[in-house]
Amino acid sequence: MNIPQTSFPRVVIVGGGFAGLAVARGLENKDVQVVLLDKHNYHTFQPLLYQVATGGLEPDSIAFPLRKRFNDIENFYFRLAEVTRIVKEENEIETTIGTLQYDYLVLATGSTTNFFGNKNIEKFTMEMKSIPQSLNIRSLILENFEEALLTSDLEERKKLMNFVIVGGGPTGVELAGALAEMKKGFLPKDYPDLDIRLMKINLIQSSGCLLKGMSEKASQKAEDFLVKLGVDVWKNLRVLDYDGDLVKTNGEDHFRATTVIWAAGVKGEAIEGAGTECIVERAGRYKVDTFNRVVNSDNIFAVGDVASMNSEAYPYGHPMMAQPAIQQGNLLAKNIVNLLNDKKLIPFVYDDKGSMATIGRNKAVVDLPKWKFQGVFAWFVWMFVHLFSLIGFRNKAVVFLNWVYNYIRFDRETRLIIRPFKKRNKYSFENSEK
Amino acid sequence: MNIPQTSFPRVVIVGGGFAGLAVARGLENKDVQVVLLDKHNYHTFQPLLYQVATGGLEPDSIAFPLRKRFNDIENFYFRLAEVTRIVKEENEIETTIGTLQYDYLVLATGSTTNFFGNKNIEKFTMEMKSIPQSLNIRSLILENFEEALLTSDLEERKKLMNFVIVGGGPTGVELAGALAEMKKGFLPKDYPDLDIRLMKINLIQSSGCLLKGMSEKASQKAEDFLVKLGVDVWKNLRVLDYDGDLVKTNGEDHFRATTVIWAAGVKGEAIEGAGTECIVERAGRYKVDTFNRVVNSDNIFAVGDVASMNSEAYPYGHPMMAQPAIQQGNLLAKNIVNLLNDKKLIPFVYDDKGSMATIGRNKAVVDLPKWKFQGVFAWFVWMFVHLFSLIGFRNKAVVFLNWVYNYIRFDRETRLIIRPFKKRNKYSFENSEK
Repeated sequence: MNIPQTSFPRVVIVGGGFAGLAVARGLENKDVQVVLLDKHNYHTFQPLLYQVATGGLEPDSIAFPLRKRFNDIENFYFRLAEVTRIVKEENEIETTIGTLQYDYLVLATGSTTNFFGNKNIEKFTMEMKSIPQSLNIRSLILENFEEALLTSDLEERKKLMNFVIVGGGPTGVELAGALAEMKKGFLPKDYPDLDIRLMKINLIQSSGCLLKGMSEKASQKAEDFLVKLGVDVWKNLRVLDYDGDLVKTNGEDHFRATTVIWAAGVKGEAIEGAGTECIVERAGRYKVDTFNRVVNSDNIFAVGDVASMNSEAYPYGHPMMAQPAIQQGNLLAKNIVNLLNDKKLIPFVYDDKGSMATIGRNKAVVDLPKWKFQGVFAWFVWMFVHLFSLIGFRNKAVVFLNWVYNYIRFDRETRLIIRPFKKRNKYSFENSEK
Repeated sequence: MNIPQTSFPRVVIVGGGFAGLAVARGLENKDVQVVLLDKHNYHTFQPLLYQVATGGLEPDSIAFPLRKRFNDIENFYFRLAEVTRIVKEENEIETTIGTLQYDYLVLATGSTTNFFGNKNIEKFTMEMKSIPQSLNIRSLILENFEEALLTSDLEERKKLMNFVIVGGGPTGVELAGALAEMKKGFLPKDYPDLDIRLMKINLIQSSGCLLKGMSEKASQKAEDFLVKLGVDVWKNLRVLDYDGDLVKTNGEDHFRATTVIWAAGVKGEAIEGAGTECIVERAGRYKVDTFNRVVNSDNIFAVGDVASMNSEAYPYGHPMMAQPAIQQGNLLAKNIVNLLNDKKLIPFVYDDKGSMATIGRNKAVVDLPKWKFQGVFAWFVWMFVHLFSLIGFRNKAVVFLNWVYNYIRFDRETRLIIRPFKKRNKYSFENSEK
């Protein structure tokens, strides 16, 4: 890998998401050598992926080049690589570009879509955890409409204009809302020959409420907003299977649809080799102590989505969201410095700053610890917080500009099929970057 | 194709580039039915593709959704399709989505890269005529640098950092200049471990001067600018072959390079079926009369790059640039209306408004009919003209914002590998959209 051996201990961070970035930032100009590995050369601002998928933002505006962030930091190395295995006994990792020794290993690999073992669903549904995947969804939506224009078969057209989103968490809710706004916005203008009433947006949630984890009020209001926007919300309905044509559920309702987006679950993207005993079964997350140290290891840490730190308040670990990731990352950087200086480690306590979701124009729900509110003001708060959280002035400016434009014009202009999806052999993902 | 038969004559326009768009605009709300076909759902502003390739702009900012442009136009139909054949006798075209009858056919298919029959060069070099291709180049440049970091073999590293651009026209000159600015700008910051002096940018031109077609002064100044920026300009040198490793020339100099960009020629993208006698051999352009009517046909027209209208001033047809395309398109729309009203057709006269090329920051050359100038002011003129020519307020705003940012910060921030190129099997283009 051509990384020099220095007298400083080497901290290898795997993953440049919120957690990994926080650790790397915290270790800037400390007496360590930092090696950051990621399979992309950019950090993805995941909370806005759904806007890329629905034509509201360009991909470049929610991504930030990782190298740029650490341009002027000494003892920092970035490598574009995927880690395939941890060789714990040797303090070594195996990657797509060779092996690397570490003194401290920080696993910040985040999460991946959880299909709960259903191969059909994995093969035929769309996921939205990365920029390429979001662009695939954007292309597929538009390609469906182009195709719907061509067919005279009404059933076929309905199928092409039927969208099923599985999972009523923030991703599902925000995506359903954005699709509903496309239906009210540019789609009928762009496709005047199509009867837009044929377009259906179905949001399917297995439990009895949306936005589990948020307040009852937020959940109810989000549902009201969605219904008002024309989304069909299906609660207490579980998707059992999908063959590219028919969505089978455990209820009486089935759905014929070309596009099914799977937002029903995530799991930690644990890497093999740290020992199976330290991984939570099915959840794919590393069991960590209050210092984010992976159980049964001294120098391996896990932060963010891939870490499961159980406590009384969070018996299944913290929510897989940006805030716990950033807070854990920040603290871990401090604790690594403490370790090196033989100081006492500080245990992690999650400071829940609240959560929020946006459904559409002037429609959002915000739960702060002491104040819960919904509607226009919540929407502005949501926008402000997201704009503020983006890395880089250019990104902030481009996103802001797009939002103002989209708001004034009721439009979403980045509706380009840049990565044609169907053409690339719809269900063969061999050549499609995930 | 589900396009209704009306009492209006049907004008089918193939291609949504500068020429096709001009025709469609000119026919707005006239007594015709207009069907526009394009293989992309967006118009590409080709003059700025090189900035997408070199990380200066996001692809969405130089593309405009074709449907949006004609949202509120009656009797207008867009279809996402590629035309595969013209069946002249039947007044019909065959496309990837079925056949279509026309009353008038307007061929505005533009141009494609001309490899002059060399299969090796076609296979191993990069071209830059579309957004996906530009993103491929962007990815390859960055992937090369990531790979160069990993190798200890100096020859291999040199090869990865060696860039060969074949063709000293506007595309080659602008791309070479942009690469040189990357070398001075973010590349040494992003890759401090690499000796940036190993990066070479070679611009190879078969004739004795760059920017053929512009003034001698512009050509000379462009070369001076390039040399000042550190580009190695090779004149009177012809590339004979490239096998993915070695660029063979007709001179003593050969080049080992991973990246070779072919900007040495374009040809018209003529579609089969209009009769071979109406196509200029090797140039792939339709021979047209002064009304842009394809020879030996009554109702087939060709405009823009794909049309070759010979005159005393332009014995080989007009230059393959935006201006002739737009002017021909505008006039053809008028002439089609004249035809329908049995009015006299107006012959085309090219109004040469001049040409320009930019080499880098504060460095451009402009040839106006009565005034030729170079340097800072030329650069501002170049920017103003290009900004002004972009379609859509949002695009203008985003491009302007990026330019201001890049200018102030000496940076190019959209350096993301969104379409990994090498990973997708470098030389297998089967799955890569062209």
